[in-house]
Formats: sequence, C-alpha cells, structure tokens
Amino acid sequence: MPENVSYVSRAGAFRTGADSPVQALENHLRVIGAREPDVRAFVCLDVDAARRQAKDSEARWRKNAPLSALDGMVIGVKDIIETVDFPTGQGLPALEGFRSGRDAASVAALKSAGAIVIGKTTTTEFASTELFYPTRNPHDAARTPGGSSSGSAAAVGCGMVQLALASQVVGSTLRPSSYNGAFGYKPTWGGLNRSGSYDYLSQSCVGIIGRHLDDMWVGTRQIAIRAGGDPGHVGVLGPDVPVSVQRPARVAVLRTDGWLRTSDAVKSAFEDKLVRLGAAGVEIGTAQNDTLVAALESAIENALDKTWNVLVWEMRWPLNVYGDQSHLGMSDAMRMRLAQGEAMNQASYAEALSMRDSARARLRDVSGAYDCILTLGAVSAAPADFSTTGDPSFNVPASYLGAPALSLPVLEDGGLPLGLQIIGGHHQDARIFAVAKWLLDNIQ
Amino acid sequence: MPENVSYVSRAGAFRTGADSPVQALENHLRVIGAREPDVRAFVCLDVDAARRQAKDSEARWRKNAPLSALDGMVIGVKDIIETVDFPTGQGLPALEGFRSGRDAASVAALKSAGAIVIGKTTTTEFASTELFYPTRNPHDAARTPGGSSSGSAAAVGCGMVQLALASQVVGSTLRPSSYNGAFGYKPTWGGLNRSGSYDYLSQSCVGIIGRHLDDMWVGTRQIAIRAGGDPGHVGVLGPDVPVSVQRPARVAVLRTDGWLRTSDAVKSAFEDKLVRLGAAGVEIGTAQNDTLVAALESAIENALDKTWNVLVWEMRWPLNVYGDQSHLGMSDAMRMRLAQGEAMNQASYAEALSMRDSARARLRDVSGAYDCILTLGAVSAAPADFSTTGDPSFNVPASYLGAPALSLPVLEDGGLPLGLQIIGGHHQDARIFAVAKWLLDNIQ
Repeated sequence: MPENVSYVSRAGAFRTGADSPVQALENHLRVIGAREPDVRAFVCLDVDAARRQAKDSEARWRKNAPLSALDGMVIGVKDIIETVDFPTGQGLPALEGFRSGRDAASVAALKSAGAIVIGKTTTTEFASTELFYPTRNPHDAARTPGGSSSGSAAAVGCGMVQLALASQVVGSTLRPSSYNGAFGYKPTWGGLNRSGSYDYLSQSCVGIIGRHLDDMWVGTRQIAIRAGGDPGHVGVLGPDVPVSVQRPARVAVLRTDGWLRTSDAVKSAFEDKLVRLGAAGVEIGTAQNDTLVAALESAIENALDKTWNVLVWEMRWPLNVYGDQSHLGMSDAMRMRLAQGEAMNQASYAEALSMRDSARARLRDVSGAYDCILTLGAVSAAPADFSTTGDPSFNVPASYLGAPALSLPVLEDGGLPLGLQIIGGHHQDARIFAVAKWLLDNIQ
Repeated sequence: MPENVSYVSRAGAFRTGADSPVQALENHLRVIGAREPDVRAFVCLDVDAARRQAKDSEARWRKNAPLSALDGMVIGVKDIIETVDFPTGQGLPALEGFRSGRDAASVAALKSAGAIVIGKTTTTEFASTELFYPTRNPHDAARTPGGSSSGSAAAVGCGMVQLALASQVVGSTLRPSSYNGAFGYKPTWGGLNRSGSYDYLSQSCVGIIGRHLDDMWVGTRQIAIRAGGDPGHVGVLGPDVPVSVQRPARVAVLRTDGWLRTSDAVKSAFEDKLVRLGAAGVEIGTAQNDTLVAALESAIENALDKTWNVLVWEMRWPLNVYGDQSHLGMSDAMRMRLAQGEAMNQASYAEALSMRDSARARLRDVSGAYDCILTLGAVSAAPADFSTTGDPSFNVPASYLGAPALSLPVLEDGGLPLGLQIIGGHHQDARIFAVAKWLLDNIQ
C-alpha cells in the first residue's frame, strides 16, 4: 500500500545524515529478500551494483550535491525498456539475454538524476497479453499482478522499489497499478520520451508506477527536463518540485464499458466517493446531466475494439519479423493479432485513426468544462486467474484518448486493492496530480 | 545515370523468360565487380544469398506468381536500418557487427514483396555529418558521394543496385541523390514506416534512391501497403502501379538560402528549365510575383539553423548514452551536437517546434495554389572534398517542412550530375511523381 512519506521529502534528512539512500535501499532489499521468492517481480537484479550506487548517492547528499531530488531512489525498469547494465527480453524467454548496449531515454534521464536501477521487471510477451513470467500479486499470491507491467506494479505494490518504469498502450500501467495497490501514471500521449523502449504503437507511452505521488511527479519531471517527450512533442510540463494541492470545482464522471462488468459492491464503493465529493461542494457532471459527457461516453463505447482496430495494423511489424523466427515461440494470441493486422489495409486504418481523432475531440470538449474526469481503476480487484492480465475496460479509454491518467490506490474490493482513476485533458498532467492530492486528503 | 527502362516494366519478359531477375542481378554484379573496389558503397554484401534469391524469383515469375511487381529487384539498405541477415553498424566502425536480430518494417515489406537485399550500404556516423567510410562518388572518385545515405546513392548512381533504402532528416537522401546522378525521394513526414531504423528524430523519414521513378513509386507503395506509415500515420497513398504523367498548370519556384551559394552556371541551368516550363505554358510563381511564395521563402530562411534547433534537442538521446561509452569513439562533431542539445530546454524546444509549425502552414498555403514547387537539388555537383557531406541548403527545406520531395538527375554542373528538385504539399507524394514524369518528358 502507498506510503505517507515520499522519497523526495527525505532530502533534508539525507543532507544531515539522519537518513540515507543506503537505508532506503536496505529497506527495499529486506522486502525483496522476503517477498521476491514468491512474487517473482524481477527478470534480473543487481544488488551489489545497487549498494555501490547507494553509497555514492549518500556521499553526494552529505556533500549537499545530489544530482536531483530523487538521487538514490531505487527503481525497477520494465523489461521492454533498454538498459546498458541489464539485458532486455520483452517478455519472451527466447529473447532473454539480448543486449541492446544502451539505456533508453527515460532510463538515461533517471540515472543521470541519480536513480538506482536495481533490475528489470517482468512483462508479458511483447508487453501484450500473454503471461510468460510467474509473477504473483503481492497482496494475494493466488491472484495475477495484471499486466503488461506486471513486475513493475508488483514490485512497487509491496515496496521492493520506490518507483518503476512501465508502459501503456491499452491498460498496461493503470490496471496492474490498481491490482497491486500502487499509484499508476500514464502521461498525455508523447509526454515522456519513449525512445529506446520496444514500444512503437501510436498510443504507447512510458508509464510510471510509484508509492507516492510526489516521487512520481518529480520522477516525471526529471525525465521530461532531461529527455523531453517523444520526438516532436515538448513533453510533460510543470514545476520540478511536487505540485501543490488543487481542489476541483467540477468533476466529470465516466462509467465506460467497464461499468456493466462491475460488481454492485465496487459500484457502491465508487459512488460513495462521488457522494463525498458532492458533499465537499464539488459539482459532478455525468452522461445523464451533461451532453458533453454523454458525447464522450458514446465516443469511448467499445473503446477496446476501437483500440485494437488501430493497434493490430501497427503491430504487424515487429510481429511479422519475430513471427518468422519460429524459435522465438511466439504465442498463438500474438499470431492472431498479426493475422488481424494483415487483414487490414491503409483505408481501414485511416478510418480507425479518424474515429480515434473524433473521440479525442470529445475529450477536449469535456476537459474544457471540468477540472478532471473520475472513473474506476479496474472492474474488480485482481482476478484469481493466471491466464489473463485482467479486464482493461476502465483503462483503455485514457489510452485511446491519449489522455493523462492516474490510478489512486484508495478503493478496495473484498479487502484487496482497487484504484480510483482520474483522467485529464491533453497536457493537464500536472493538474491531475494536483487534484489527486486533494482527493487523497479529502475523500480517501 | 538513370535508366530508360524500369525494373517493373520488365514483368512481361520475366513471365515469358525473355528476361529474368537472374539476368538483372548478374548485370548488377558485373557493375559491383567493376566499381565496388573503388566506390566502396557497401559495408557488407552477400552475393551467394542474392543469387539464390534471384533464382527463386525467376521461378516465381515463370510460374506467373511473383510476390509483387518488384519481385527479384536488387536493393541496398542503408546501414542504420535493421536487417536480420546483416549487422547494423550506424556508420560507426565500433558498432560494426551489431546484430539486432530482425528486419526493419521497410525491409520486411520489400522482402515480402520479393526484393533481394544484397547488402548494407555505407552511411556517416549516426547518419549525420561525419564520414567514416571511404565511399567515393562513382562519377568522379576524387569527389564525395555526399551523405548521409552515401553508399545507397553511390550504389544506385552507378547501377550496383536498382533501388536503395535511405533516410533523411536534413538532406541525407536528396543531396547524395543529386551528387550521384540518382533519383532521390523523401516522402511526406510519416509516410513510410521507420520502425526498426536507428532514426528517431521528428523530421526523420525513410528515403528511397532509385534508377527509375516507376520502380521507386512501386517500391514506395509496396512498403506503404505492407507496413504503412509511421505509427499514427496512414502512409503514402496512391495507385499500386506507376503513376500517370501529370502536366502541371502552376509551379512555384523557391530559391532558398542555397541560391546565394550557387554558381552563375548552375543558376542559369536552373533558369533555363524555368524558361522551358514557361514556354510550355506553365504559370510560374516566385517570391517576386506571389506573396504566398514570398511568405514561404521567408519561413524557410535559415532553415538549416532552425532545423538544428529542433534536432539537437531530439538527438541528446541516444548521443548521451553512446557518448558515455568512450570505446565507440564518437566524433567531436557529434559531441558538439550533444552539448548544444543539452544547453536547450523544453521551452526553447517548444519555440523551435512552433516556428516549424508556422513554416509548415506557409507550405500549405503555397501547395494549395500550385501543383508543385521547384528548386535545385544542391548548390553544385559533389565537391572534391571528403571532409564534408556537402551543402544541404537546398535539401533542408523539404525536411523542415515535412514535405515530399524528389531529386531528378536532369541537370549538370561541370559535366557532373546535379538534381532538379520538386517539392509537394503534405501528402502530395503521388502528385510529385506524376509531375516529375512530365518534367522528364518535357524539359529534360
């Protein structure tokens, strides 16, 4: 579960020596020692290197010369993101051990800000749907961690690391964050430089999973100021320090396709938050009382199908080249995606893109009229089923819309964690962090 | 110099056996045997594999079952583009031999259309400015082939291959095409899927260098229908067969910054073409007689500086991660680019992007009023200087504007080849091919 104290708030104590990045690392190592044998969040780990780096960081803090506010923070990196110190396997055992020889842009940025990459976290095959690694949900080993950022969310969820790099094209950051009791952040599309991640789709983005919003925001900004957004995008803007709390005046609520698959208990946990919002004087817009919200709900109807219509065309490569290499043992599910993509053409892809553009215009209408959008983080807690990464119905809209979104671990389903999701308009990343902090203080 | 007979027009003879992809290959191999020892266009070649593939192609044609109209065509691939059969070295000897284990999207598309990748062609360091390979201009071994698609242009220019994949972010396709007497094509930005090319910048694109426009157009379409554009872009649209000739009614002329560095002899060779256009009844717009053209000329003033303002920010990665690996021996020029990028920030990058957006809006004004734009392909023939890839003044506008452009080898400078450049509005790729064919027939 999330922590009350952020890493970045420990700076003063790091400077005096009352606290230290070495202590922070050793706390994570204790959790790793206790939990990793069961949770299995990592593809590979380098504890010795992490210890050396933590000592260096401690020395920098004591000299009052940290590389940034997150100097010494222990992070994990999803195994589709390139690192020079570890191989990059993309969730296929057959690709394990492949070395690209370089760090991805996001990794290079965090390392130059002083972050300690302790290891690579597990993912599904090509960060899609097939689970090859035996990662378990740290809150209940009989349940899936979700995916595709399985290891990143599981490791953060139980405190093995403070922060982890993830990615999302459908629901791969927000859903496992919801399942593992972590905060999850998916930036506005293009907001964080994806270069050096095996992650090529037009909705893909680097995601961040963390134990505290302030660490996540500072980490986001450290990436943005050092590596920018995707080429052609300015990248996430805002203060370099934690954002200030912002009380929302108007909140739109989306029920999405996921509502139909949500239990009454979860629905009422969500509705309870809305009641508390209303009691705090926040105006709430829904499809029932606002035609702008209704138009957006309608534009994201069947968002999962609409998203796959975009993605399967874009996934033909690299699936077609990996598919030719039969020793890789690509799953039937991926071969099916490839076949679907190969059945499309430029005209059908153009149609899928145009539908997505229209939906994004409806988001702009709503985000112009509301401070943020609220919905659930997932239809339920993590299912007790390892054949699936879980239902992405509540996560796909933010991906499809190119919107920034946060999953906040403030709901429960049968005693297990469940996220409350906040979605912003394009480039309102700082605002959703600010409103999220207000929500944590006021309706948690 | 370009050929009168396209590869794709030989289909009938391939079917009857009067002609054959094996013959086509053997002709290229004769040129390679005669010229490669001096020209040195290739990083690596696999003649045996090419011969096996040509036989297979011959058999398919004889069974009237070619994979596409370009089945059996011999192509070269710039060494920043990934191939499973050859390593990808990015123009750094220290990276020679690196194997990514897969084909880039464009390579996979052309191979599945039956093309024979005979080898990887030389490029400059990271496809930028520093020449590490000793490639020579096939028209005069004392002259540079230009860059960064040095080997692709040199190989096509002397007939070692029929077509070659290239790339362009400043002038890397159009300039060496002009220098080596080849046709060069730079698509509308996003028009051909770049995935799997070490080529990440927001103006980057896959380029095509060829000996005949019809082969280039068919090759373009074979990539577009099989691999599309960059993710999020529909990709180049148009007929799958060679485009029909189109007579332009109105042509805009851009003189650009390059005009000041152009000799009187080259200027008059260009002006002579304009006189012939006028005599053919084509209306000509210039900065002097049309304020739209004047506004575009003004928007692309200092386009090279404006382009570098965009690119150096985007190049920080991967230069920062390669720069840390001192064994790679990155050049001082690249280290300077890295330092320039690191001196920028999100705000200055945003300004550079916004200036580029404005220039693109001026292009839309002009392309709405004219059938195409004409300018020179380069300020001169290839210089007798191996310390430079040549002056890109005439090539950078199309890159900066995200516009499609073709360099046609129809001018001369001191007996050496020089290109005439035709630029289109966004997505007018098919139109510039069609107008180019009219120009070849009427003002060559």
